[in-house]
Amino acid sequence: MSQHAITPEIEAILLGKNFASFATLMKDGSPHVAPTWIDYDGQFILINTAKGRVKEKNVQDDNRVALSVYDNSNPYNMITIRGTVEETTEENADLHIDKLAKRYFGYDKYPRQSPNEKRIILKIKPAHVFHQKPPT
Amino acid sequence: MSQHAITPEIEAILLGKNFASFATLMKDGSPHVAPTWIDYDGQFILINTAKGRVKEKNVQDDNRVALSVYDNSNPYNMITIRGTVEETTEENADLHIDKLAKRYFGYDKYPRQSPNEKRIILKIKPAHVFHQKPPT
Repeated sequence: MSQHAITPEIEAILLGKNFASFATLMKDGSPHVAPTWIDYDGQFILINTAKGRVKEKNVQDDNRVALSVYDNSNPYNMITIRGTVEETTEENADLHIDKLAKRYFGYDKYPRQSPNEKRIILKIKPAHVFHQKPPT
Repeated sequence: MSQHAITPEIEAILLGKNFASFATLMKDGSPHVAPTWIDYDGQFILINTAKGRVKEKNVQDDNRVALSVYDNSNPYNMITIRGTVEETTEENADLHIDKLAKRYFGYDKYPRQSPNEKRIILKIKPAHVFHQKPPT
């Protein structure tokens, strides 16, 4: 059931117009989860956030994370992934949020960018991958 | 931003045909998250699962949980809740899964009930409630 590989079917979910739920750990070790956009670069699962947000602060303290995504066109086609944030980078993070705004909104530019916010990309290495396929 | 009350708007999301993402803690303290059906009884947030599942085992070890739900008709209307599982009960859990199957599938009876599985209800007391409303 659990595996390590991102199969083409899983990649399709990650690259679709689907929201992820991203779980991190609060300082006291309790879980936090929030909906977020998601991307995949062929190696890492990418989450674009801003410096100072809860999820960013949480992964600085503890890089263990989990995420789940379901296919909007069939919620019973779902994945759950556990892994670690291996890198956080500002490099290309502004370009990347525009790319996601295009995918999710159809906009050319991310419309909510605040000049006081610095975008960053969290690069997540998947360790446990579980794909629950819809009943056939 | 953070509050304790389940407002009527939040209740509408919890009682809609919306999937929740439910985060729990693995034995090693790392997060787990999985999509699930959800319900609300006016006091507790209810998740119906089966004995022996990852999420059930996790909350036996550590009752701290988090969940997020977004409104299917507008994913930018979303809630994030952190709290604790205050009770787990088998009482009415079979009736309750049928009620949820009706809401989510339109079925009169939950179609996937296995005779080897015992349904249980997790009763979650919300401690931190965050409602991100869509931009107006």
